[in-house]
Amino acid sequence: MSCVFCDIVAGRAPARFVHQDEQVVAFHDIHPKAPVHVLVVPRVHVASLDHLGPEHEALVLHIIRLLPGLARRLGLAEGYRTVVNTGRGGGQIVDHLHLHLLGGFRHPGR
Amino acid sequence: MSCVFCDIVAGRAPARFVHQDEQVVAFHDIHPKAPVHVLVVPRVHVASLDHLGPEHEALVLHIIRLLPGLARRLGLAEGYRTVVNTGRGGGQIVDHLHLHLLGGFRHPGR
Repeated sequence: MSCVFCDIVAGRAPARFVHQDEQVVAFHDIHPKAPVHVLVVPRVHVASLDHLGPEHEALVLHIIRLLPGLARRLGLAEGYRTVVNTGRGGGQIVDHLHLHLLGGFRHPGR
Repeated sequence: MSCVFCDIVAGRAPARFVHQDEQVVAFHDIHPKAPVHVLVVPRVHVASLDHLGPEHEALVLHIIRLLPGLARRLGLAEGYRTVVNTGRGGGQIVDHLHLHLLGGFRHPGR
């Protein structure tokens, strides 16, 4: 089973990276929905938020801790939005867990 | 300093609860942006995702673990979206950390 995010993690597909560490990579979404739209993607293939288990607790905490600094480095000092879509009915398109980090909105709504 | 979510947690303001436990409460958003729109709110006052510290790790993991079952109980078997807005530029309106759980979209986008 091919997974485009596994391909990016492995260097088999291109991406404009903004962050890489041992647990996650982050890169610009190719179809940005905001002036800044980055995806934070675990290196390990986890299908969705529904598929997280006890073995992923360190990963979850790592992502949450990463966000404030990553947002600042992307110029989002005034704030940012984080979105996780789970399942087709939730708008998930790629079945590899990813967090959308968005910002730079002119008129932030909810 | 008054906080509407602290008031709800303490029972001083009304809300239509869908879940309550020792760490969080969840209730329907009064201005729903989707057919199902619930807020998951820590009982403890944390201003935003930027204000999470090591002392909140158990809280973060608790919320992540809660979501799949809560979404199912709300009828969102086909999927759901989770959103956290941080700071005014990110669309955060109430300065008490909260996670939006949304679903039942007719045409889920990203």
